[in-house]
Amino acid sequence: MISENSYFNNNVKSLGYTSATGKSTLGVMEPGEYEFSTSLHETMTVIEGEMTVKLPDVSEWVTYKAGEAYQIEANKSFLVKVNTQTAYLCQYQ
Amino acid sequence: MISENSYFNNNVKSLGYTSATGKSTLGVMEPGEYEFSTSLHETMTVIEGEMTVKLPDVSEWVTYKAGEAYQIEANKSFLVKVNTQTAYLCQYQ
Repeated sequence: MISENSYFNNNVKSLGYTSATGKSTLGVMEPGEYEFSTSLHETMTVIEGEMTVKLPDVSEWVTYKAGEAYQIEANKSFLVKVNTQTAYLCQYQ
Repeated sequence: MISENSYFNNNVKSLGYTSATGKSTLGVMEPGEYEFSTSLHETMTVIEGEMTVKLPDVSEWVTYKAGEAYQIEANKSFLVKVNTQTAYLCQYQ
Protein backbone atom coordinates (compact mmCIF):
# COMPACT_ATOMS: atom_id res chain seq x y z
CA MET A 1 0.00 0.00 0.00
CA ILE A 2 1.16 3.55 -0.74
CA SER A 3 0.44 5.76 2.29
CA GLU A 4 -0.47 9.46 1.93
CA ASN A 5 0.77 11.87 4.61
CA SER A 6 0.21 15.58 5.10
CA TYR A 7 1.78 17.96 7.63
CA PHE A 8 1.86 21.66 8.51
CA ASN A 9 -1.60 22.44 7.06
CA ASN A 10 -0.91 20.57 3.79
CA ASN A 11 2.32 22.51 3.23
CA VAL A 12 4.29 19.26 3.36
CA LYS A 13 2.86 16.13 1.72
CA SER A 14 4.45 12.73 1.26
CA LEU A 15 3.86 9.25 -0.09
CA GLY A 16 5.08 6.30 1.98
CA TYR A 17 6.28 2.99 0.56
CA THR A 18 8.78 0.18 1.15
CA SER A 19 11.89 -0.10 -0.99
CA ALA A 20 14.28 -3.05 -1.25
CA THR A 21 16.32 -1.54 1.60
CA GLY A 22 13.55 -0.30 3.93
CA LYS A 23 10.86 2.28 4.46
CA SER A 24 10.94 5.54 2.45
CA THR A 25 8.81 8.54 1.73
CA LEU A 26 8.75 10.84 -1.28
CA GLY A 27 7.61 14.30 -0.39
CA VAL A 28 7.10 17.90 -1.46
CA MET A 29 7.46 21.00 0.73
CA GLU A 30 5.84 24.35 0.04
CA PRO A 31 7.99 27.45 0.72
CA GLY A 32 8.24 27.91 4.47
CA GLU A 33 10.17 26.96 7.63
CA TYR A 34 9.52 23.64 9.35
CA GLU A 35 10.74 21.69 12.36
CA PHE A 36 10.83 17.92 11.92
CA SER A 37 11.49 15.27 14.55
CA THR A 38 12.90 11.82 13.87
CA SER A 39 12.11 8.52 15.55
CA LEU A 40 14.46 6.59 13.25
CA HIS A 41 17.73 7.53 11.55
CA GLU A 42 16.83 9.37 8.34
CA THR A 43 18.66 10.10 5.10
CA MET A 44 17.12 13.08 3.28
CA THR A 45 17.93 13.60 -0.39
CA VAL A 46 16.80 16.68 -2.33
CA ILE A 47 15.23 15.68 -5.67
CA GLU A 48 14.25 19.10 -7.02
CA GLY A 49 14.57 22.56 -5.46
CA GLU A 50 16.75 23.15 -2.40
CA MET A 51 16.58 23.06 1.38
CA THR A 52 18.45 25.13 3.95
CA VAL A 53 18.83 22.96 7.01
CA LYS A 54 19.91 23.41 10.63
CA LEU A 55 20.87 19.96 11.86
CA PRO A 56 20.73 19.00 15.56
CA ASP A 57 23.64 20.16 17.75
CA VAL A 58 24.94 22.35 14.87
CA SER A 59 24.80 26.15 14.83
CA GLU A 60 25.02 26.98 11.13
CA TRP A 61 22.46 26.51 8.39
CA VAL A 62 23.57 24.52 5.33
CA THR A 63 21.87 24.55 1.89
CA TYR A 64 21.35 21.25 0.06
CA LYS A 65 20.51 21.25 -3.66
CA ALA A 66 19.07 18.59 -5.99
CA GLY A 67 21.03 15.37 -5.64
CA GLU A 68 22.56 16.33 -2.29
CA ALA A 69 21.73 14.48 0.93
CA TYR A 70 22.06 14.82 4.69
CA GLN A 71 21.49 12.49 7.62
CA ILE A 72 19.76 12.87 10.98
CA GLU A 73 20.09 10.54 13.95
CA ALA A 74 16.99 8.99 15.54
CA ASN A 75 15.09 10.97 18.20
CA LYS A 76 16.40 14.36 17.09
CA SER A 77 14.80 17.53 15.72
CA PHE A 78 16.00 19.59 12.78
CA LEU A 79 14.90 22.79 11.04
CA VAL A 80 14.29 23.18 7.31
CA LYS A 81 13.72 26.36 5.28
CA VAL A 82 12.61 26.22 1.63
CA ASN A 83 12.04 29.14 -0.75
CA THR A 84 10.50 27.21 -3.67
CA GLN A 85 8.45 24.01 -3.88
CA THR A 86 11.05 21.36 -3.04
CA ALA A 87 10.85 17.61 -3.65
CA TYR A 88 12.72 15.12 -1.47
CA LEU A 89 13.30 11.47 -0.71
CA CYS A 90 13.46 10.39 2.95
CA GLN A 91 14.93 6.94 3.66
CA TYR A 92 14.40 5.62 7.16
CA GLN A 93 17.74 3.88 7.42
CA MET B 1 -0.26 24.05 -3.98
CA ILE B 2 0.86 20.41 -3.95
CA SER B 3 -1.64 18.33 -5.96
CA GLU B 4 -2.44 14.71 -5.07
CA ASN B 5 -3.15 12.28 -7.91
CA SER B 6 -4.19 8.64 -7.90
CA TYR B 7 -4.52 6.22 -10.83
CA PHE B 8 -5.24 2.54 -11.49
CA ASN B 9 -7.29 1.97 -8.31
CA ASN B 10 -4.73 3.70 -6.09
CA ASN B 11 -1.92 1.52 -7.41
CA VAL B 12 -0.14 4.61 -8.71
CA LYS B 13 -0.10 7.80 -6.63
CA SER B 14 1.71 11.05 -7.24
CA LEU B 15 2.27 14.54 -5.88
CA GLY B 16 2.31 17.43 -8.36
CA TYR B 17 4.37 20.61 -7.96
CA THR B 18 6.28 23.23 -9.94
CA SER B 19 10.06 23.23 -9.97
CA ALA B 20 12.39 25.97 -11.20
CA THR B 21 12.29 24.39 -14.66
CA GLY B 22 8.62 23.42 -14.95
CA LYS B 23 5.90 21.06 -13.79
CA SER B 24 6.88 17.77 -12.11
CA THR B 25 5.32 14.93 -10.23
CA LEU B 26 6.81 12.56 -7.67
CA GLY B 27 5.10 9.21 -7.66
CA VAL B 28 5.02 5.64 -6.40
CA MET B 29 3.84 2.58 -8.33
CA GLU B 30 2.65 -0.65 -6.77
CA PRO B 31 3.77 -3.89 -8.47
CA GLY B 32 1.80 -4.28 -11.69
CA GLU B 33 1.64 -3.41 -15.40
CA TYR B 34 0.38 0.00 -16.52
CA GLU B 35 -0.20 1.93 -19.73
CA PHE B 36 0.43 5.67 -19.51
CA SER B 37 -0.35 8.33 -22.11
CA THR B 38 1.46 11.64 -22.45
CA SER B 39 0.11 15.03 -23.44
CA LEU B 40 3.50 16.71 -22.94
CA HIS B 41 7.07 15.49 -23.40
CA GLU B 42 8.02 13.63 -20.20
CA THR B 43 11.31 12.70 -18.57
CA MET B 44 10.87 9.81 -16.12
CA THR B 45 13.59 9.12 -13.57
CA VAL B 46 13.54 6.10 -11.28
CA ILE B 47 14.24 7.12 -7.66
CA GLU B 48 13.95 3.76 -5.90
CA GLY B 49 13.05 0.33 -7.28
CA GLU B 50 13.03 -0.36 -11.02
CA MET B 51 10.75 -0.17 -14.04
CA THR B 52 10.65 -2.30 -17.16
CA VAL B 53 9.38 -0.09 -19.95
CA LYS B 54 8.15 -0.52 -23.51
CA LEU B 55 8.50 2.87 -25.15
CA PRO B 56 6.36 3.96 -28.13
CA ASP B 57 7.40 2.61 -31.57
CA VAL B 58 9.93 0.27 -29.90
CA SER B 59 9.55 -3.52 -29.70
CA GLU B 60 11.78 -4.46 -26.77
CA TRP B 61 11.29 -3.86 -23.07
CA VAL B 62 14.08 -2.03 -21.23
CA THR B 63 14.66 -2.03 -17.44
CA TYR B 64 15.54 1.25 -15.71
CA LYS B 65 16.99 1.22 -12.19
CA ALA B 66 17.34 3.93 -9.52
CA GLY B 67 18.98 7.01 -11.00
CA GLU B 68 18.25 6.01 -14.59
CA ALA B 69 15.88 7.99 -16.81
CA TYR B 70 13.96 7.72 -20.07
CA GLN B 71 12.01 10.17 -22.19
CA ILE B 72 8.63 10.00 -23.95
CA GLU B 73 7.38 12.37 -26.64
CA ALA B 74 4.08 14.19 -26.22
CA ASN B 75 0.85 12.44 -27.27
CA LYS B 76 2.27 8.93 -27.04
CA SER B 77 1.52 5.85 -24.90
CA PHE B 78 4.03 3.63 -23.13
CA LEU B 79 3.88 0.48 -21.00
CA VAL B 80 5.48 0.05 -17.58
CA LYS B 81 5.93 -3.13 -15.52
CA VAL B 82 7.12 -2.99 -11.90
CA ASN B 83 7.79 -5.92 -9.56
CA THR B 84 8.35 -3.96 -6.34
CA GLN B 85 7.04 -0.61 -5.06
CA THR B 86 8.89 1.85 -7.28
CA ALA B 87 9.37 5.59 -6.75
CA TYR B 88 9.83 7.97 -9.68
CA LEU B 89 10.16 11.60 -10.71
CA CYS B 90 8.28 12.75 -13.82
CA GLN B 91 9.34 16.09 -15.33
CA TYR B 92 7.02 17.53 -17.95
CA GLN B 93 9.75 19.01 -20.11
